[in-house]
Amino acid sequence: MTTKLTLQYDGAGFAGWAAQPGERTVQSELEAAIGRILGAPAPVTVAGRTDAGVHAWGQVCSCHTEALDPVSLNALLPADVAVLDSAPAAPDFDARRDAVSRTYCYRVLHRRTRDAFERERALWWRHRVDRDALRACAAALAGRHDFTAFTPTETEHVRFERNVHRSEWSEHGDLLEFWIEADAFMRHMNRILIGTMLEVAGGKRSLEGFIALLEGAHRREAGPTAPAHGLYLASVSYPQS
Amino acid sequence: MTTKLTLQYDGAGFAGWAAQPGERTVQSELEAAIGRILGAPAPVTVAGRTDAGVHAWGQVCSCHTEALDPVSLNALLPADVAVLDSAPAAPDFDARRDAVSRTYCYRVLHRRTRDAFERERALWWRHRVDRDALRACAAALAGRHDFTAFTPTETEHVRFERNVHRSEWSEHGDLLEFWIEADAFMRHMNRILIGTMLEVAGGKRSLEGFIALLEGAHRREAGPTAPAHGLYLASVSYPQS
Repeated sequence: MTTKLTLQYDGAGFAGWAAQPGERTVQSELEAAIGRILGAPAPVTVAGRTDAGVHAWGQVCSCHTEALDPVSLNALLPADVAVLDSAPAAPDFDARRDAVSRTYCYRVLHRRTRDAFERERALWWRHRVDRDALRACAAALAGRHDFTAFTPTETEHVRFERNVHRSEWSEHGDLLEFWIEADAFMRHMNRILIGTMLEVAGGKRSLEGFIALLEGAHRREAGPTAPAHGLYLASVSYPQS
Repeated sequence: MTTKLTLQYDGAGFAGWAAQPGERTVQSELEAAIGRILGAPAPVTVAGRTDAGVHAWGQVCSCHTEALDPVSLNALLPADVAVLDSAPAAPDFDARRDAVSRTYCYRVLHRRTRDAFERERALWWRHRVDRDALRACAAALAGRHDFTAFTPTETEHVRFERNVHRSEWSEHGDLLEFWIEADAFMRHMNRILIGTMLEVAGGKRSLEGFIALLEGAHRREAGPTAPAHGLYLASVSYPQS
Protein backbone atom coordinates (compact mmCIF):
# COMPACT_ATOMS: atom_id res chain seq x y z
CA MET A 1 0.00 0.00 0.00
CA THR A 2 1.02 3.57 -0.59
CA THR A 3 0.04 6.71 1.26
CA LYS A 4 0.10 10.28 -0.05
CA LEU A 5 0.87 12.82 2.68
CA THR A 6 0.33 16.58 2.38
CA LEU A 7 2.18 18.66 4.91
CA GLN A 8 3.19 22.18 5.83
CA TYR A 9 6.26 23.39 7.68
CA ASP A 10 7.80 26.57 8.94
CA GLY A 11 11.28 26.32 7.45
CA ALA A 12 12.93 28.67 9.95
CA GLY A 13 14.05 25.90 12.28
CA PHE A 14 15.10 23.35 9.65
CA ALA A 15 18.25 22.71 7.65
CA GLY A 16 15.93 22.07 4.71
CA TRP A 17 13.98 18.99 3.65
CA ALA A 18 16.62 16.35 2.99
CA ALA A 19 17.99 14.26 5.85
CA GLN A 20 21.61 15.13 6.67
CA PRO A 21 23.68 13.73 9.51
CA GLY A 22 23.64 15.97 12.57
CA GLU A 23 21.07 18.38 11.14
CA ARG A 24 17.43 18.96 12.02
CA THR A 25 15.53 18.36 8.77
CA VAL A 26 11.86 17.90 7.85
CA GLN A 27 12.51 14.51 6.28
CA SER A 28 14.21 13.12 9.36
CA GLU A 29 11.46 14.39 11.68
CA LEU A 30 8.74 12.94 9.44
CA GLU A 31 10.46 9.58 8.92
CA ALA A 32 11.08 9.31 12.68
CA ALA A 33 7.38 9.93 13.41
CA ILE A 34 6.21 7.42 10.80
CA GLY A 35 8.77 4.92 12.05
CA ARG A 36 7.43 5.23 15.58
CA ILE A 37 3.89 4.50 14.39
CA LEU A 38 4.86 1.57 12.20
CA GLY A 39 7.61 0.20 14.39
CA ALA A 40 9.90 0.03 11.38
CA PRO A 41 11.77 2.54 9.18
CA ALA A 42 9.65 3.93 6.34
CA PRO A 43 11.46 6.15 3.84
CA VAL A 44 9.43 8.90 2.16
CA THR A 45 9.75 10.35 -1.35
CA VAL A 46 9.15 14.10 -1.61
CA ALA A 47 7.71 16.14 -4.47
CA GLY A 48 9.95 19.18 -4.02
CA ARG A 49 13.10 19.27 -1.92
CA THR A 50 13.37 22.58 -0.15
CA ASP A 51 16.53 24.30 1.07
CA ALA A 52 17.25 25.49 4.59
CA GLY A 53 14.81 28.21 5.65
CA VAL A 54 12.31 27.58 2.83
CA HIS A 55 8.74 26.98 3.99
CA ALA A 56 5.95 24.74 2.71
CA TRP A 57 2.20 25.21 2.72
CA GLY A 58 1.46 22.09 0.69
CA GLN A 59 4.44 19.77 0.35
CA VAL A 60 3.56 16.26 -0.82
CA CYS A 61 5.33 13.01 -0.18
CA SER A 62 4.68 9.33 -0.73
CA CYS A 63 5.40 6.44 1.56
CA HIS A 64 4.94 2.72 0.89
CA THR A 65 2.88 1.98 3.94
CA GLU A 66 -0.67 1.56 5.15
CA ALA A 67 -2.82 4.66 5.76
CA LEU A 68 -1.44 6.93 8.47
CA ASP A 69 -3.71 8.87 10.79
CA PRO A 70 -2.81 12.60 10.58
CA VAL A 71 -3.81 13.18 14.23
CA SER A 72 -1.43 10.46 15.44
CA LEU A 73 1.34 11.70 13.14
CA ASN A 74 0.92 15.30 14.31
CA ALA A 75 1.09 14.20 17.92
CA LEU A 76 4.56 12.79 17.21
CA LEU A 77 5.80 15.64 15.03
CA PRO A 78 7.32 18.87 16.36
CA ALA A 79 5.11 21.97 16.35
CA ASP A 80 6.73 23.48 13.24
CA VAL A 81 5.61 20.62 10.94
CA ALA A 82 2.00 19.57 10.49
CA VAL A 83 0.48 16.84 8.36
CA LEU A 84 -2.62 18.31 6.72
CA ASP A 85 -3.86 15.22 4.93
CA SER A 86 -3.12 11.54 4.53
CA ALA A 87 -4.79 9.66 1.70
CA PRO A 88 -4.48 6.23 0.12
CA ALA A 89 -2.71 6.28 -3.25
CA ALA A 90 -2.09 3.85 -6.10
CA PRO A 91 0.55 1.27 -5.12
CA ASP A 92 3.10 2.71 -7.54
CA PHE A 93 2.38 6.37 -6.67
CA ASP A 94 5.61 8.38 -6.43
CA ALA A 95 5.23 11.95 -5.15
CA ARG A 96 8.26 13.17 -7.08
CA ARG A 97 8.00 11.36 -10.41
CA ASP A 98 4.21 11.67 -10.76
CA ALA A 99 3.98 15.39 -10.00
CA VAL A 100 2.95 17.36 -13.08
CA SER A 101 3.64 20.79 -11.60
CA ARG A 102 4.79 22.61 -8.49
CA THR A 103 3.60 26.04 -7.38
CA TYR A 104 5.80 28.33 -5.32
CA CYS A 105 5.12 31.69 -3.71
CA TYR A 106 7.73 34.26 -2.72
CA ARG A 107 6.65 36.94 -0.24
CA VAL A 108 8.23 40.42 -0.23
CA LEU A 109 7.33 42.93 2.47
CA HIS A 110 7.81 46.32 0.82
CA ARG A 111 7.84 49.05 3.44
CA ARG A 112 10.10 51.35 5.41
CA THR A 113 9.93 49.61 8.77
CA ARG A 114 10.39 45.92 9.33
CA ASP A 115 7.67 43.64 10.66
CA ALA A 116 8.30 41.61 13.82
CA PHE A 117 5.87 38.88 12.74
CA GLU A 118 7.22 38.50 9.20
CA ARG A 119 10.89 38.41 10.19
CA GLU A 120 11.41 34.80 9.08
CA ARG A 121 8.48 34.67 6.68
CA ALA A 122 8.96 37.41 4.09
CA LEU A 123 11.84 39.33 2.56
CA TRP A 124 11.87 42.85 4.00
CA TRP A 125 12.63 45.19 1.08
CA ARG A 126 13.00 48.96 1.46
CA HIS A 127 14.19 49.84 -2.04
CA ARG A 128 12.27 51.18 -4.97
CA VAL A 129 9.85 48.70 -6.57
CA ASP A 130 8.32 49.49 -9.94
CA ARG A 131 5.20 47.31 -9.87
CA ASP A 132 4.73 47.53 -13.63
CA ALA A 133 8.25 46.23 -14.17
CA LEU A 134 7.54 43.28 -11.87
CA ARG A 135 4.36 42.47 -13.78
CA ALA A 136 6.21 42.69 -17.10
CA CYS A 137 8.89 40.29 -15.83
CA ALA A 138 6.24 37.83 -14.63
CA ALA A 139 4.48 37.98 -18.00
CA ALA A 140 7.76 37.27 -19.80
CA LEU A 141 8.33 34.17 -17.68
CA ALA A 142 5.25 32.30 -18.93
CA GLY A 143 6.09 29.57 -21.42
CA ARG A 144 9.15 27.41 -22.06
CA HIS A 145 12.55 28.92 -21.29
CA ASP A 146 16.15 28.00 -20.64
CA PHE A 147 16.86 28.82 -16.99
CA THR A 148 20.62 28.07 -17.01
CA ALA A 149 21.27 31.59 -15.67
CA PHE A 150 18.99 30.90 -12.70
CA THR A 151 20.78 28.02 -11.01
CA PRO A 152 24.28 27.66 -9.56
CA THR A 153 27.02 26.87 -12.07
CA GLU A 154 27.97 23.71 -10.23
CA THR A 155 24.82 21.70 -10.67
CA GLU A 156 23.48 18.19 -10.95
CA HIS A 157 20.79 19.26 -13.40
CA VAL A 158 21.23 18.08 -16.97
CA ARG A 159 18.28 19.83 -18.62
CA PHE A 160 17.86 23.55 -18.09
CA GLU A 161 14.56 24.14 -19.83
CA ARG A 162 11.41 24.41 -17.79
CA ASN A 163 7.75 25.10 -18.66
CA VAL A 164 6.21 27.92 -16.69
CA HIS A 165 2.41 27.49 -16.59
CA ARG A 166 1.63 30.52 -14.45
CA SER A 167 3.67 33.48 -13.29
CA GLU A 168 2.26 36.57 -11.62
CA TRP A 169 2.78 39.16 -8.92
CA SER A 170 -0.08 40.00 -6.58
CA GLU A 171 -0.26 42.78 -4.02
CA HIS A 172 -1.92 42.86 -0.59
CA GLY A 173 -1.18 46.15 1.14
CA ASP A 174 2.60 46.31 1.55
CA LEU A 175 3.03 42.61 0.84
CA LEU A 176 4.01 41.60 -2.68
CA GLU A 177 3.66 37.95 -3.63
CA PHE A 178 5.19 36.24 -6.63
CA TRP A 179 3.32 33.09 -7.68
CA ILE A 180 4.87 30.70 -10.14
CA GLU A 181 3.76 27.29 -11.35
CA ALA A 182 6.05 25.17 -13.53
CA ASP A 183 6.58 21.53 -14.42
CA ALA A 184 9.71 21.53 -12.29
CA PHE A 185 12.23 23.92 -10.75
CA MET A 186 15.98 23.91 -10.45
CA ARG A 187 17.91 24.57 -7.27
CA HIS A 188 17.73 28.29 -6.28
CA MET A 189 15.74 29.06 -9.44
CA ASN A 190 12.95 30.94 -7.66
CA ARG A 191 15.32 32.84 -5.41
CA ILE A 192 17.53 33.96 -8.31
CA LEU A 193 14.42 34.95 -10.30
CA ILE A 194 13.33 37.12 -7.36
CA GLY A 195 16.80 38.66 -6.94
CA THR A 196 16.87 39.48 -10.64
CA MET A 197 13.29 40.79 -10.89
CA LEU A 198 13.92 43.10 -7.92
CA GLU A 199 16.88 44.54 -9.86
CA VAL A 200 14.55 45.28 -12.77
CA ALA A 201 11.96 46.77 -10.37
CA GLY A 202 14.66 48.96 -8.84
CA GLY A 203 15.87 50.29 -12.19
CA LYS A 204 19.22 48.49 -12.02
CA ARG A 205 18.48 46.17 -14.92
CA SER A 206 16.32 46.55 -18.02
CA LEU A 207 13.30 44.44 -18.77
CA GLU A 208 14.93 43.51 -22.08
CA GLY A 209 18.02 42.36 -20.19
CA PHE A 210 15.85 40.16 -18.00
CA ILE A 211 14.03 38.67 -20.98
CA ALA A 212 17.33 37.92 -22.72
CA LEU A 213 18.40 35.79 -19.73
CA LEU A 214 15.49 33.43 -20.40
CA GLU A 215 17.14 32.13 -23.54
CA GLY A 216 20.01 30.67 -21.56
CA ALA A 217 22.96 32.60 -20.11
CA HIS A 218 25.71 32.18 -17.56
CA ARG A 219 24.77 32.34 -13.89
CA ARG A 220 26.85 35.49 -13.46
CA GLU A 221 24.55 37.34 -15.88
CA ALA A 222 21.57 37.01 -13.50
CA GLY A 223 21.00 38.79 -10.17
CA PRO A 224 21.65 37.69 -6.60
CA THR A 225 19.95 34.79 -4.84
CA ALA A 226 17.15 36.19 -2.67
CA PRO A 227 16.99 34.88 0.92
CA ALA A 228 15.34 31.53 1.58
CA HIS A 229 12.89 32.79 4.20
CA GLY A 230 10.55 34.48 1.69
CA LEU A 231 9.96 31.27 -0.28
CA TYR A 232 7.04 28.82 0.14
CA LEU A 233 6.30 25.60 -1.70
CA ALA A 234 2.57 26.29 -2.07
CA SER A 235 1.24 23.14 -3.75
CA VAL A 236 1.97 20.19 -6.00
CA SER A 237 -0.31 18.96 -8.76
CA TYR A 238 -0.89 15.40 -9.94
CA PRO A 239 -2.89 14.05 -12.88
CA GLN A 240 -6.66 14.00 -12.20
CA SER A 241 -6.26 15.83 -8.89
CA MET B 1 10.07 66.97 24.94
CA THR B 2 7.96 63.86 24.78
CA THR B 3 7.83 61.19 22.10
CA LYS B 4 4.97 58.79 21.37
CA LEU B 5 6.16 55.44 20.09
CA THR B 6 3.96 52.84 18.40
CA LEU B 7 5.40 49.36 18.27
CA GLN B 8 4.63 45.74 17.51
CA TYR B 9 6.15 42.62 18.99
CA ASP B 10 5.92 38.88 18.68
CA GLY B 11 5.38 37.90 22.31
CA ALA B 12 6.64 34.31 21.90
CA GLY B 13 10.18 35.12 22.96
CA PHE B 14 9.40 37.57 25.77
CA ALA B 15 8.56 37.24 29.45
CA GLY B 16 5.96 39.95 28.82
CA TRP B 17 6.23 43.72 28.67
CA ALA B 18 7.43 44.75 32.10
CA ALA B 19 11.14 44.70 32.94
CA GLN B 20 12.03 41.94 35.41
CA PRO B 21 15.52 41.01 36.58
CA GLY B 22 17.01 38.16 34.57
CA GLU B 23 14.15 38.03 32.06
CA ARG B 24 13.98 39.06 28.41
CA THR B 25 11.18 41.62 28.27
CA VAL B 26 9.99 44.13 25.65
CA GLN B 27 10.41 47.05 28.02
CA SER B 28 14.03 46.23 28.80
CA GLU B 29 14.90 45.74 25.12
CA LEU B 30 13.23 49.03 24.18
CA GLU B 31 14.77 51.03 27.03
CA ALA B 32 18.20 49.59 26.23
CA ALA B 33 17.87 50.65 22.57
CA ILE B 34 16.67 54.17 23.47
CA GLY B 35 19.42 54.43 26.07
CA ARG B 36 22.05 53.59 23.47
CA ILE B 37 20.79 56.34 21.17
CA LEU B 38 20.53 58.98 23.89
CA GLY B 39 23.56 57.91 25.88
CA ALA B 40 21.47 57.97 29.05
CA PRO B 41 18.68 55.87 30.58
CA ALA B 42 15.20 56.83 29.35
CA PRO B 43 12.28 55.09 31.05
CA VAL B 44 9.15 54.51 28.98
CA THR B 45 5.51 54.45 30.07
CA VAL B 46 3.33 51.88 28.32
CA ALA B 47 -0.37 51.99 27.45
CA GLY B 48 -1.09 48.33 28.10
CA ARG B 49 1.18 45.95 29.97
CA THR B 50 1.13 42.55 28.32
CA ASP B 51 1.88 39.19 29.94
CA ALA B 52 4.41 36.63 28.77
CA GLY B 53 3.54 35.30 25.31
CA VAL B 54 1.01 38.04 24.49
CA HIS B 55 1.66 39.87 21.23
CA ALA B 56 1.20 43.48 20.16
CA TRP B 57 0.31 44.94 16.77
CA GLY B 58 0.00 48.51 18.03
CA GLN B 59 1.38 48.99 21.53
CA VAL B 60 1.95 52.63 22.49
CA CYS B 61 4.42 54.11 24.93
CA SER B 62 5.65 57.55 25.89
CA CYS B 63 9.16 58.66 26.66
CA HIS B 64 10.34 62.08 27.85
CA THR B 65 12.95 62.60 25.19
CA GLU B 66 13.56 64.24 21.86
CA ALA B 67 12.18 62.62 18.70
CA LEU B 68 13.59 59.16 18.03
CA ASP B 69 14.22 57.92 14.51
CA PRO B 70 12.36 54.59 14.01
CA VAL B 71 14.99 53.32 11.57
CA SER B 72 17.79 53.86 14.12
CA LEU B 73 15.71 52.33 16.90
CA ASN B 74 14.86 49.28 14.80
CA ALA B 75 18.51 48.78 13.95
CA LEU B 76 19.20 48.43 17.70
CA LEU B 77 16.15 46.34 18.57
CA PRO B 78 15.95 42.54 18.19
CA ALA B 79 14.02 41.19 15.19
CA ASP B 80 10.91 40.31 17.22
CA VAL B 81 10.17 43.95 18.18
CA ALA B 82 9.68 46.74 15.65
CA VAL B 83 8.95 50.41 16.15
CA LEU B 84 6.28 51.36 13.61
CA ASP B 85 6.05 55.05 14.35
CA SER B 86 7.67 57.75 16.44
CA ALA B 87 5.89 61.08 16.77
CA PRO B 88 6.32 64.22 18.88
CA ALA B 89 3.71 64.52 21.63
CA ALA B 90 2.60 67.17 24.12
CA PRO B 91 5.18 67.56 26.92
CA ASP B 92 2.85 66.01 29.49
CA PHE B 93 1.66 63.16 27.25
CA ASP B 94 1.44 59.88 29.18
CA ALA B 95 0.69 56.77 27.10
CA ARG B 96 -1.05 55.01 29.98
CA ARG B 97 -3.01 57.79 31.67
CA ASP B 98 -4.13 59.53 28.47
CA ALA B 99 -5.37 56.41 26.66
CA VAL B 100 -9.14 56.46 26.24
CA SER B 101 -9.45 52.88 25.04
CA ARG B 102 -7.51 49.76 24.20
CA THR B 103 -8.45 47.21 21.53
CA TYR B 104 -7.43 43.57 21.80
CA CYS B 105 -7.84 40.67 19.41
CA TYR B 106 -7.82 36.98 20.33
CA ARG B 107 -7.22 34.50 17.51
CA VAL B 108 -8.64 30.97 17.60
CA LEU B 109 -7.76 28.45 14.91
CA HIS B 110 -10.73 26.12 14.74
CA ARG B 111 -9.86 23.01 12.79
CA ARG B 112 -8.92 19.36 13.14
CA THR B 113 -5.22 19.62 12.32
CA ARG B 114 -2.85 22.13 13.82
CA ASP B 115 -1.05 24.79 11.81
CA ALA B 116 2.74 24.96 11.85
CA PHE B 117 2.75 28.71 11.17
CA GLU B 118 0.15 29.60 13.81
CA ARG B 119 1.68 27.51 16.59
CA GLU B 120 2.61 30.51 18.75
CA ARG B 121 0.12 32.94 17.23
CA ALA B 122 -3.35 31.45 17.64
CA LEU B 123 -5.09 29.05 20.00
CA TRP B 124 -5.61 25.74 18.23
CA TRP B 125 -9.11 24.55 19.15
CA ARG B 126 -10.61 21.26 17.98
CA HIS B 127 -13.79 21.22 20.02
CA ARG B 128 -17.31 22.15 19.02
CA VAL B 129 -17.86 25.88 18.45
CA ASP B 130 -21.38 27.21 18.15
CA ARG B 131 -20.80 30.47 16.24
CA ASP B 132 -24.19 31.86 17.21
CA ALA B 133 -23.39 31.33 20.88
CA LEU B 134 -20.09 33.22 20.44
CA ARG B 135 -21.88 36.10 18.75
CA ALA B 136 -24.49 36.21 21.52
CA CYS B 137 -21.75 36.34 24.17
CA ALA B 138 -19.99 39.16 22.34
CA ALA B 139 -23.23 41.13 22.08
CA ALA B 140 -23.84 40.70 25.81
CA LEU B 141 -20.41 42.13 26.60
CA ALA B 142 -21.09 45.57 25.11
CA GLY B 143 -21.72 48.21 27.76
CA ARG B 144 -20.67 48.66 31.37
CA HIS B 145 -20.14 45.52 33.43
CA ASP B 146 -18.50 44.23 36.60
CA PHE B 147 -15.67 41.94 35.52
CA THR B 148 -14.66 40.67 38.99
CA ALA B 149 -15.14 37.07 37.78
CA PHE B 150 -12.67 37.68 34.94
CA THR B 151 -9.49 38.50 36.83
CA PRO B 152 -7.47 36.53 39.40
CA THR B 153 -8.72 36.70 42.98
CA GLU B 154 -5.44 38.09 44.20
CA THR B 155 -5.37 41.39 42.41
CA GLU B 156 -4.12 44.93 42.63
CA HIS B 157 -7.20 46.27 40.88
CA VAL B 158 -9.58 48.30 43.03
CA ARG B 159 -12.38 48.96 40.53
CA PHE B 160 -13.83 46.01 38.66
CA GLU B 161 -16.20 47.79 36.31
CA ARG B 162 -15.14 48.39 32.74
CA ASN B 163 -16.87 49.96 29.72
CA VAL B 164 -16.86 47.77 26.64
CA HIS B 165 -17.23 49.96 23.53
CA ARG B 166 -17.03 47.18 20.96
CA SER B 167 -17.15 43.40 21.18
CA GLU B 168 -17.49 41.05 18.24
CA TRP B 169 -16.39 37.76 16.73
CA SER B 170 -15.31 37.68 13.10
CA GLU B 171 -14.52 34.65 10.97
CA HIS B 172 -11.93 34.18 8.21
CA GLY B 173 -11.96 30.57 7.01
CA ASP B 174 -11.04 28.44 10.02
CA LEU B 175 -9.73 31.41 11.98
CA LEU B 176 -12.05 33.00 14.53
CA GLU B 177 -11.12 36.41 15.89
CA PHE B 178 -12.57 38.07 18.95
CA TRP B 179 -12.23 41.87 18.88
CA ILE B 180 -12.87 43.89 22.00
CA GLU B 181 -12.42 47.58 22.73
CA ALA B 182 -12.83 48.90 26.28
CA ASP B 183 -11.69 51.84 28.36
CA ALA B 184 -9.33 49.54 30.21
CA PHE B 185 -8.77 45.85 30.92
CA MET B 186 -7.84 43.91 34.00
CA ARG B 187 -5.12 41.29 34.19
CA HIS B 188 -6.15 38.08 32.33
CA MET B 189 -9.57 39.59 31.57
CA ASN B 190 -9.46 38.83 27.85
CA ARG B 191 -8.07 35.35 28.32
CA ILE B 192 -10.71 34.40 30.92
CA LEU B 193 -13.43 35.87 28.68
CA ILE B 194 -12.19 33.63 25.85
CA GLY B 195 -11.99 30.56 28.09
CA THR B 196 -15.54 31.19 29.28
CA MET B 197 -17.01 32.01 25.86
CA LEU B 198 -15.52 28.81 24.44
CA GLU B 199 -17.36 26.90 27.17
CA VAL B 200 -20.62 28.50 26.04
CA ALA B 201 -19.76 27.73 22.40
CA GLY B 202 -19.07 24.11 23.33
CA GLY B 203 -22.37 23.68 25.16
CA LYS B 204 -20.76 23.40 28.60
CA ARG B 205 -22.19 26.64 29.92
CA SER B 206 -25.40 28.50 29.13
CA LEU B 207 -25.52 31.94 27.57
CA GLU B 208 -27.60 33.07 30.57
CA GLY B 209 -24.88 31.76 32.89
CA PHE B 210 -22.29 33.79 30.98
CA ILE B 211 -24.42 36.95 31.11
CA ALA B 212 -24.96 36.53 34.86
CA LEU B 213 -21.18 36.64 35.38
CA LEU B 214 -21.08 40.16 33.99
CA GLU B 215 -22.84 41.53 37.07
CA GLY B 216 -19.91 40.53 39.29
CA ALA B 217 -19.12 37.05 40.55
CA HIS B 218 -16.27 35.10 42.07
CA ARG B 219 -13.38 34.13 39.81
CA ARG B 220 -14.20 30.45 40.28
CA GLU B 221 -17.58 30.98 38.58
CA ALA B 222 -15.92 31.85 35.26
CA GLY B 223 -14.06 29.53 32.87
CA PRO B 224 -10.37 28.80 32.45
CA THR B 225 -7.74 31.31 31.37
CA ALA B 226 -7.07 30.80 27.64
CA PRO B 227 -3.38 30.62 26.60
CA ALA B 228 -1.47 33.86 26.14
CA HIS B 229 -0.29 33.13 22.59
CA GLY B 230 -3.67 33.86 20.96
CA LEU B 231 -3.87 37.38 22.37
CA TYR B 232 -2.83 40.62 20.61
CA LEU B 233 -2.93 44.21 21.81
CA ALA B 234 -4.22 45.62 18.55
CA SER B 235 -4.34 49.38 19.16
CA VAL B 236 -4.67 52.16 21.70
CA SER B 237 -6.83 55.25 21.25
CA TYR B 238 -6.16 58.78 22.48
CA PRO B 239 -8.34 61.89 22.38
CA GLN B 240 -8.39 63.56 18.95
CA SER B 241 -6.39 60.73 17.37
